[in-house]
Amino acid sequence: MLILVINSGSSSLKFQLIDSEKKQMLVKGLCERIGIEEPFFDYENGGCSIHEPRQMDTHKDAVHILLETLLDPECGVIGSLDEIAAVGHRVVHGGPHFSHPALVTEETKEAILKSSGWCPLHNQANLTGIEVLEKAMPGVPQVAVFDTAFHQTMPPEAYMYGIPYEYFEKFDMRRYGFHGTSHEFVTRRAAEMTKHDPASFRLITCHLGNGSFFAAIKGGRCLDTSMGLTPLEGIMMGTRCGSIDPAIPPFIGKLGNCTPDEVDDILNKKSGMLGISGVSMDFRDIQAAAAEGNERARLAVKMFCYQAIKIIGSYIAALGGLDTLVFTAGVGENDEMIRKSICDGLAYSGIEIDQERNLIRRKEAILSTEDSAVEVFVIPTNEELSIAVQTAEVLKKTDA
Amino acid sequence: MLILVINSGSSSLKFQLIDSEKKQMLVKGLCERIGIEEPFFDYENGGCSIHEPRQMDTHKDAVHILLETLLDPECGVIGSLDEIAAVGHRVVHGGPHFSHPALVTEETKEAILKSSGWCPLHNQANLTGIEVLEKAMPGVPQVAVFDTAFHQTMPPEAYMYGIPYEYFEKFDMRRYGFHGTSHEFVTRRAAEMTKHDPASFRLITCHLGNGSFFAAIKGGRCLDTSMGLTPLEGIMMGTRCGSIDPAIPPFIGKLGNCTPDEVDDILNKKSGMLGISGVSMDFRDIQAAAAEGNERARLAVKMFCYQAIKIIGSYIAALGGLDTLVFTAGVGENDEMIRKSICDGLAYSGIEIDQERNLIRRKEAILSTEDSAVEVFVIPTNEELSIAVQTAEVLKKTDA
Repeated sequence: MLILVINSGSSSLKFQLIDSEKKQMLVKGLCERIGIEEPFFDYENGGCSIHEPRQMDTHKDAVHILLETLLDPECGVIGSLDEIAAVGHRVVHGGPHFSHPALVTEETKEAILKSSGWCPLHNQANLTGIEVLEKAMPGVPQVAVFDTAFHQTMPPEAYMYGIPYEYFEKFDMRRYGFHGTSHEFVTRRAAEMTKHDPASFRLITCHLGNGSFFAAIKGGRCLDTSMGLTPLEGIMMGTRCGSIDPAIPPFIGKLGNCTPDEVDDILNKKSGMLGISGVSMDFRDIQAAAAEGNERARLAVKMFCYQAIKIIGSYIAALGGLDTLVFTAGVGENDEMIRKSICDGLAYSGIEIDQERNLIRRKEAILSTEDSAVEVFVIPTNEELSIAVQTAEVLKKTDA
Repeated sequence: MLILVINSGSSSLKFQLIDSEKKQMLVKGLCERIGIEEPFFDYENGGCSIHEPRQMDTHKDAVHILLETLLDPECGVIGSLDEIAAVGHRVVHGGPHFSHPALVTEETKEAILKSSGWCPLHNQANLTGIEVLEKAMPGVPQVAVFDTAFHQTMPPEAYMYGIPYEYFEKFDMRRYGFHGTSHEFVTRRAAEMTKHDPASFRLITCHLGNGSFFAAIKGGRCLDTSMGLTPLEGIMMGTRCGSIDPAIPPFIGKLGNCTPDEVDDILNKKSGMLGISGVSMDFRDIQAAAAEGNERARLAVKMFCYQAIKIIGSYIAALGGLDTLVFTAGVGENDEMIRKSICDGLAYSGIEIDQERNLIRRKEAILSTEDSAVEVFVIPTNEELSIAVQTAEVLKKTDA
């Protein structure tokens, strides 16, 4: 079943065409700088790749170019749009309304708009993508797959903040978590790989990349996650500060005489690994600087690993023990030094990894030794494939 | 050796006269509402207690009344001020300057003023107490005992925040921790009680009260603590929110059109157990409401225990295992249900407490069973005694 996966941003549109049964990507690409200067079209299938400036004033223009190219005799991969069974859309925030992917209806769209209170720009952009595709491919089912849905199984003691209750009651202010499609993807795969009972195994997923986040998962159900109301909470990230004393944002505002938006910018874009190291937001650059003796780069790496160890430790407590630990995403799949530091720091829990196996990059692997009390896997994440598979599942349920 | 312990607030002066060798309190009391309407003097020794309005326009007046009463033929306990060997002052914030108690000199006072950046009101009030006592008791050594000193052994990966490095470099913005005298007190006592080697045992202290905080301590040295730059961070408390998504304070400001100071007030005084339960900031009231079926009171208790379990879990990871867990302070010493919930949630770590022993209140006790992999103690904290003992130690070092 061919699924077109769309991730629509405010001035961009990422896409993949995926065979959800064969779990195979046929086409991927990106429309960039839509409605601003120098728009660009990026497209790739096995045999053909396009990287060229194209006029795109609106998302409608971008979708037109995309569909045209999919049908193109030379670079296309389909003969007719009818071959596409459905479109799966990434939607960032499902609020408290969506615990599963949803077929797009008028009610769905209204709820997406309502849920966007905490990520208004993201959800609005996602909705634009949905509406443009609805018009461009009339009759083709559109499915919204929510970043927050996977985390909706958290119990109240995990998702509530210690702030006055009215903020939850009136404004839905609570922990939501993000990138549920990544957690969902590696959770499903871990359930296939584990030697434990998939219905009850205690799993911690470590998505370590530019954005980094963790989830505590029991028998496939999420019990806790490190991102919160927004993606700012949790471990320090490429440029995000992660969890800090909540008294700090106003102090930063006062010190620099900054507006709340400027403080937000400092905490989201100038903090984290970049802010500490002063070198880069990219772990590869930071590791290189650390290897050359840069003290702040070393500190950034130490802080990151220490915070990871503490979050994993807190989730071991939340789960009442640990069966399986999964590393994924850019850093999790490729940085053997980070993986080793974290696993060494968790030796008390019986985790033991094989140093040879740990050299793996960008491939599924078992890192743990035979004697390790905890399985440790690397599972490359694939959020687009997860969206395609979940979209196909919604279709099947709708047909049934 | 008689030590006068002073905790000077902006409009109050708490005092105790303590025999630091016998670890015995001779007098305790409080001058309240100094410089505002209806000032009050509270004084108690074994045989005599005073509770009466007294005119106190300044801290100088308050100290005058206190010293006069200590010498009073009827209610006093000393014949001459010379019997007081030293005055030990609680100072809230030692900044990065003080890792130990310090004899008060002109340099010390300057550094206290410099370190007050993050708690200006507190440190200023503490300094007022020091200066008034210096004048009232010339020649008697004054010692400053810092709330933050115990935590100065934390490594950088534990005390640094993932914010731009310049905030640390220029403004000393980092985790400090508070109530070090409480952690210090129970740590020393735990070192006497433990069956492990005091030089290396892995200890977590849980100070649970209206303010609540944890510390991870190895061989007596603090490795991490849950309060941060300010006392707002960590577990949710009586009225403080504890750790939340750092994006929340500005959202609260926008929603209610509040100034930063009003947001600060909401997060410090209207949040935590009070904000969630809507009942009270007092655990006894909340437990009573929960027992009667109040859902929000139940949620507050559940959240508190869950957050405690997660913090302890993260410290078990930071310490690489756990030998000893200590409960202290109002809730930690008296609330057997909270202790049981937390210990039950930590069963994975081999903690097992005896249900009979756990009924103890306000007394030193071993709660753990013989088979428990972790010792669990209740140790009533005594910050004033800790200040007296540390003050006496400074005198001995100065003499030597």
